[in-house]
Amino acid sequence: MADSTKKPLIMVVNDDGITAPGIRALISYMLDIGDVFVVAPNKSMSGMGHAITIDATLRFTKHNGILGIEEYSCSGTPVDCVKFGTEVVANGRKVDLLVSGINHGQNSSINVIYSGTMSAAMEGAIEGIPSIGFSLCNHSLDADFTPCEKVVKSIVRKTLEKGALNGYCLNVNIPAIPTEEIKGIKICRQAKAYWDKDFQERKDPMGNSYYWLAGKFNNQDEGTDTDIWALENNYVSIVPTMFDLTAHQAISDLKSFE
Amino acid sequence: MADSTKKPLIMVVNDDGITAPGIRALISYMLDIGDVFVVAPNKSMSGMGHAITIDATLRFTKHNGILGIEEYSCSGTPVDCVKFGTEVVANGRKVDLLVSGINHGQNSSINVIYSGTMSAAMEGAIEGIPSIGFSLCNHSLDADFTPCEKVVKSIVRKTLEKGALNGYCLNVNIPAIPTEEIKGIKICRQAKAYWDKDFQERKDPMGNSYYWLAGKFNNQDEGTDTDIWALENNYVSIVPTMFDLTAHQAISDLKSFE
Repeated sequence: MADSTKKPLIMVVNDDGITAPGIRALISYMLDIGDVFVVAPNKSMSGMGHAITIDATLRFTKHNGILGIEEYSCSGTPVDCVKFGTEVVANGRKVDLLVSGINHGQNSSINVIYSGTMSAAMEGAIEGIPSIGFSLCNHSLDADFTPCEKVVKSIVRKTLEKGALNGYCLNVNIPAIPTEEIKGIKICRQAKAYWDKDFQERKDPMGNSYYWLAGKFNNQDEGTDTDIWALENNYVSIVPTMFDLTAHQAISDLKSFE
Repeated sequence: MADSTKKPLIMVVNDDGITAPGIRALISYMLDIGDVFVVAPNKSMSGMGHAITIDATLRFTKHNGILGIEEYSCSGTPVDCVKFGTEVVANGRKVDLLVSGINHGQNSSINVIYSGTMSAAMEGAIEGIPSIGFSLCNHSLDADFTPCEKVVKSIVRKTLEKGALNGYCLNVNIPAIPTEEIKGIKICRQAKAYWDKDFQERKDPMGNSYYWLAGKFNNQDEGTDTDIWALENNYVSIVPTMFDLTAHQAISDLKSFE
């Protein structure tokens, strides 16, 4: 439980880069709730998953934003940003909440595993900080974040009241529909879905092949308790998302390997 | 169950790069068991987690290895390699097994989440392929892989006999000790541990700061059923590692958010 006599310290991060409209919206909401600092990549880092920079150097540039808060852009990944923010920028202060996003595009289902937005939230959770990744189901750079404000502030306030999330973070996806059409919030499981790959081959001016990795999202999960079901039915989805990847149910099944 | 009348098709990948001694050892072991092809990064991709390349192009270069097998180096990440191998290189053939590694350095505990080696195995699992990541607990480029041969072949043969691993892959760590000192294999859970961060600041010749991300591994898990316990006690550890990140036990705890 946050100390009610002082404002909570909130770190903001994303994977679309520090200038993206989604993080600008998230920062503005957090200024109504706490003391805010920002560390975010200096360019788009979508699809970076839980990558960290261990065999190259990192640069962090301090910006004097018009909002008068501490903002740093980073040459590395979203997870690098979290590590730098909680150690160097926080500089001994306890971070009460980490929020990541708002991602331009949904991170439901298996996308959680490729997502820089969610990996940043996961890293916060590993460090014991209540952490939330927010995504809007519209990947356009011009996406309208208006539907996010009420729901983001509500979930942030509830999380600060609750305090610790033991061993997990929250993966919040918000449908891209007008606020009044959002039916509510559903606590969900990650739907079983995957990407059908589609490597597109092109030729460079020298006649050599190169490829674009593309794909088609394929959901075969008919459950009504999944994040995809919630989003398709105009609910905000929240999936508690953990970093203990042990498939505990499989342990007894593998005893013959011993 | 693999068709016993023909050799299984095995894809080999890693994150240390296609020339690393660890993948060379793994390829040589797999040639005794199946038909082998290789797709691996053209440089070290340690710590890349589950990153994929979606806003840049990819190059794949075919090499005519001395072993007469199909080998491709890739400009992208370990997960890009898996996607390319199972779609373009396999070209409609069913991949019976995906093996990743042998990593130079252990991937026990929370390291699984940062590891390119394990993310490649996880991607295989997402695609429904029985998949195993192998790591030796010695990060030296000159590491002696001799202790790996017997255990890698044994685990691969058991996995091919078993067939499908539903929703998970295997995270295998091998202690860097002589084969005769290895006490056996333990099926384990991922130990609860984390990295204490340590950003080391340096100055470039212009006097500007840059940073190296370093850290100290901190294990506070005293369980005797963990991968770290197994490795410290001279066992090979196997952790079944899943891609459904839902913290199912937390769902009821969050119902007040709805």
